[in-house]
Amino acid sequence: MTERRVLVTGATGFIGRRTLGALVEQGFEVHGVARSLPSSGPDGVLWHQADLLAQEQRRALTDEVGASHLLHLAWYAEPGKFWTAPENADWVAATVDLVSRFVRAGGTRVVAGGTCAEYDWAAIDGSLAETAPLVPHTFYGVCKDATRRVCEGLAGQSGASVAWGRVFFLYGPEEDPRRLVASVARSLARDERAATSEGRQVRDFLHVDDVAGAFVALLASEVEGAVNLGSGVGVTIREVVDLIGGAAGRPDLLDIGALPTRAGDPPVLVPDVSRLREEVRFVPAISLEDGVAQTVKWWQTTSH
Amino acid sequence: MTERRVLVTGATGFIGRRTLGALVEQGFEVHGVARSLPSSGPDGVLWHQADLLAQEQRRALTDEVGASHLLHLAWYAEPGKFWTAPENADWVAATVDLVSRFVRAGGTRVVAGGTCAEYDWAAIDGSLAETAPLVPHTFYGVCKDATRRVCEGLAGQSGASVAWGRVFFLYGPEEDPRRLVASVARSLARDERAATSEGRQVRDFLHVDDVAGAFVALLASEVEGAVNLGSGVGVTIREVVDLIGGAAGRPDLLDIGALPTRAGDPPVLVPDVSRLREEVRFVPAISLEDGVAQTVKWWQTTSH
Repeated sequence: MTERRVLVTGATGFIGRRTLGALVEQGFEVHGVARSLPSSGPDGVLWHQADLLAQEQRRALTDEVGASHLLHLAWYAEPGKFWTAPENADWVAATVDLVSRFVRAGGTRVVAGGTCAEYDWAAIDGSLAETAPLVPHTFYGVCKDATRRVCEGLAGQSGASVAWGRVFFLYGPEEDPRRLVASVARSLARDERAATSEGRQVRDFLHVDDVAGAFVALLASEVEGAVNLGSGVGVTIREVVDLIGGAAGRPDLLDIGALPTRAGDPPVLVPDVSRLREEVRFVPAISLEDGVAQTVKWWQTTSH
Repeated sequence: MTERRVLVTGATGFIGRRTLGALVEQGFEVHGVARSLPSSGPDGVLWHQADLLAQEQRRALTDEVGASHLLHLAWYAEPGKFWTAPENADWVAATVDLVSRFVRAGGTRVVAGGTCAEYDWAAIDGSLAETAPLVPHTFYGVCKDATRRVCEGLAGQSGASVAWGRVFFLYGPEEDPRRLVASVARSLARDERAATSEGRQVRDFLHVDDVAGAFVALLASEVEGAVNLGSGVGVTIREVVDLIGGAAGRPDLLDIGALPTRAGDPPVLVPDVSRLREEVRFVPAISLEDGVAQTVKWWQTTSH
């Protein structure tokens, strides 16, 4: 078998760190890059410290590793800020340069992290197939969408195959507590009230382990282009919040409807996951009930 | 009047060098950047030597100049190669970073060079308004289109206004002799035969002085978004070649039909220039006949 060496960016991030073990198991020589090296992680990962936003460091790393595969998950992801932050532009430039240098150096397979925010949220009719209109309404979505366009163009210019995993909604242990599931689970674990919106919006929540698993499966496949990463099942945010309340045994602490629904939030955001299931042949392993229970337990048994 | 300081990239290029004098005349403090400084140029231009593809140099320059206006014309433009060259990706990254840093540092007005190759050449029905479908079929077009999307997003995120001048076809003295008009004019000036395609394609040719003038007018205006830069008048390539033959007095040297028409070339590529005329209020000054005659004369009286 040809040697498969993968460079994973965002390797200490919420998704990235969960891809490493599976990549090692799949026989990849795994090179993780991060601005700060982690104190622990799966065996067999070769770590590199680099700031991917610095051109010299980025290029030196790419040349040094000489990977065949690139799993690019790094991006600006500060909760509450990432939708509009100018840092998104930095990541467009860094990503285009990284992927371009990687394929020009002979890299054969690229998988990068995209987003449901690439779609036209004002024109959603049923579940979103990858062929749905792409009219991002946020700067984050614009930047991801533009980056994908260049990366797909690069695939056409080189021998490399490029896939783009569109992440929808995710949750799991260790999530930033400024995000929905973590915020509610954490409040209840502290016996504090949790204020949420009415939560009538329908979303597709995938456990972060499954999101990571989907990225690994996509990388190991030969599927090209955009692929939605989701369960394909829509639930209301209200249902998710109720699940958290039930799992925590503290539904009384939920203050549903105390927060306003964010303007511009589409009523339904659920992907068609046919490509993921039929072409990538990935099926999520963790039900929403189990995943929420596990997440709630994590917040109850760790001090954060 | 508020001080207007403009940073011009590609300032020694075919278009860029023709914008400098007009910008000085309009009262701008003009800063030109180039990889190699020119031996001559209009009075009053402050020159900076920098490689815009090098992050450190690019950022240091932007900070140092502290311009209010940015006229970004630099891009990879090697004739015959630019349609597919991986260097286009380098310019996506450099442009996004340049424009992003510029507006984040307080720059108020950005005009950058776009291309007719952003449009869907397979779906042209009449003249192309700026609202025509954007489905670039070349890597060059993909890269320009993606860059514009991010730049327009940056405008929405900042106080800056951003316009994007879409260049169609241009010609004039000093053009690279690998390009159509220059190639034919040069051959005839040397008493050599000039082989061309049948030339049935209809195009809009604008003299480079008018292209430069249009960019200056666009920069000085408050018009935002994409603006087609053209005369609005379509001519066949055959007509242009015949004009060159006539102006040179050597129609006998034309070998029309000796070269194949390039596959994928759309039959008609003519912009709707309503925005340029009515909003930017720019009208070309040089007729095709006069411009071709001047260009032919330049090739006849200079040795290249």
